[in-house]
Amino acid sequence: MTATRIAVVGIGKIARDEHIPALAASPAFELAATVSRSGGVSGVENFDTVEALLAARPDIPAISFCTPPQVRYAGARAALEAGRQVMLEKPPGASLSEVHALQALAAERGLSLLTTWHSRHAACVPAAKAWLADKRVTSVRIDWKEDVRVWHPGQLWIWQAGGLGIFDPAINAFSILTEILPVPVHVTGADLLFPGNCETPIAARVNMNGPDGALVTAELDFLWEGEALWRLEIETDAGTLILDRGGAAMRIDGQPQGDDTPKTDAKIPGEYDRLYARFAELLATKGTDVDLRPMVLVADAFTLGRRFEGPEFIDPTTKES
Amino acid sequence: MTATRIAVVGIGKIARDEHIPALAASPAFELAATVSRSGGVSGVENFDTVEALLAARPDIPAISFCTPPQVRYAGARAALEAGRQVMLEKPPGASLSEVHALQALAAERGLSLLTTWHSRHAACVPAAKAWLADKRVTSVRIDWKEDVRVWHPGQLWIWQAGGLGIFDPAINAFSILTEILPVPVHVTGADLLFPGNCETPIAARVNMNGPDGALVTAELDFLWEGEALWRLEIETDAGTLILDRGGAAMRIDGQPQGDDTPKTDAKIPGEYDRLYARFAELLATKGTDVDLRPMVLVADAFTLGRRFEGPEFIDPTTKES
Repeated sequence: MTATRIAVVGIGKIARDEHIPALAASPAFELAATVSRSGGVSGVENFDTVEALLAARPDIPAISFCTPPQVRYAGARAALEAGRQVMLEKPPGASLSEVHALQALAAERGLSLLTTWHSRHAACVPAAKAWLADKRVTSVRIDWKEDVRVWHPGQLWIWQAGGLGIFDPAINAFSILTEILPVPVHVTGADLLFPGNCETPIAARVNMNGPDGALVTAELDFLWEGEALWRLEIETDAGTLILDRGGAAMRIDGQPQGDDTPKTDAKIPGEYDRLYARFAELLATKGTDVDLRPMVLVADAFTLGRRFEGPEFIDPTTKES
Repeated sequence: MTATRIAVVGIGKIARDEHIPALAASPAFELAATVSRSGGVSGVENFDTVEALLAARPDIPAISFCTPPQVRYAGARAALEAGRQVMLEKPPGASLSEVHALQALAAERGLSLLTTWHSRHAACVPAAKAWLADKRVTSVRIDWKEDVRVWHPGQLWIWQAGGLGIFDPAINAFSILTEILPVPVHVTGADLLFPGNCETPIAARVNMNGPDGALVTAELDFLWEGEALWRLEIETDAGTLILDRGGAAMRIDGQPQGDDTPKTDAKIPGEYDRLYARFAELLATKGTDVDLRPMVLVADAFTLGRRFEGPEFIDPTTKES
């Protein structure tokens, strides 16, 4: 198999932590260029803008976008208009309507478009989905709690309109939920806590319902101190399944399933390897994979949510002296 | 043609002003029952709950829901589960995810589901769509301004989470916009003004973009005094089209098109007649028509919007003495 040349746009934390290592290990892709205003990757040609990349490198057929959601649309649109295949980090955009517009454009041009949800590729997610397939879910409790100062230092875009605040990590929980539950859920209400100086919420409670009356409660907190909690606890008519550590570990009625060795950090090996394998599969089949269900749940929480104002949030890593 | 028996759920202002008269005039339907806790329609059997209706009247195959969006899902779900065809007032629900769930259920059961957008059936909307089809739109200005105290007296559900506030009328503008524009638009930002005592906004500015850079600005105001302003002004490469009075009047480069006689009130005859004709068509063809684009634009505005707090709003018609 010849490796497909790919460019990565937006060389920030997630690109350095995940995308670049995954591409280095991928037999399907070869990192051929980057776009970044703050420095690229050693030995790889870097461009200041997507437009410059597109003009200079017609030999690169695939582009992966890791920029903050607020600026993803313009670049992705330009890439599709230039006939390139596109992969989008989560969330795929700042609004549902812009992703619909990209989807229409990709369809019109016969190009592949992949909206990625990396948490769906965590180690235990497929097994959880398989186990739940023939169960009746009676309730779900989601805890998605992490310290934003540890996990998103200096990422000010999270607090700007369109950056989603706590929903930037919590959309991972929703991506797992919509993947593994055998039935659809819908949002019935939410409480959203906005710091006085932020445009997005720092904490939230979201209530959802399944069609058979199953209740889903999500407790989301960006000021959680100590070890991050990324857990779904799913009660069924045949026992309780717990997906822990963002999908890397699973227990059924307390019994660990598969390799449940605690890892020393929260990085889950393999998620991004699987994402790029999925993108390679789409390129080979000229397929498109746009699933917006996690984003619809977030949009519904914003639409239905009651707003509360809390204390201002100051990121210590960006505090002016 | 034999008239289809239909029940109307939620006998409030919109049912009395529009649905009941449209059904009385419709050759396709016969109003066979109502569901209302606050009084039905003279000479028509009334039930307290949807469940009671479904149990007592298996002979009624079609149900039209005019209840506030926050309580629409449960009734619509029960109706579909009981094998009835369903028509939903706008907005079709309180969340996108619940309408997706209804859509999946209707498809599973082979039942018709119609999400109605009455403003799309205003007199001049089809002509506007036809005129715009081969034009390039350069900008759109939406003004949707009305006095909530005049148009929604005592409708407290509008101010409760899920009631959408100013977006309850403004979604009509978005339903026209998405119907008549030859290209999709997406939300890029919004400012939302929440009264201190309300869970939904009383005014908003929403910015949208078309794929070719067309700018759409929507100015929405629920405290507008005087005559309501329900207008879309669309600049194109071949002149300016103004849709006024909610779609009842149209001008191109200042020239009135069709019957532009000012009406003495804002009620536009025919919208609901056309909605029920559309529902009859779907029943005949076993079709479904679920278009959520107007609701997606609203959800995007909530997701992306910056929130501002304004003075408390007291509805004079519900003020406690």
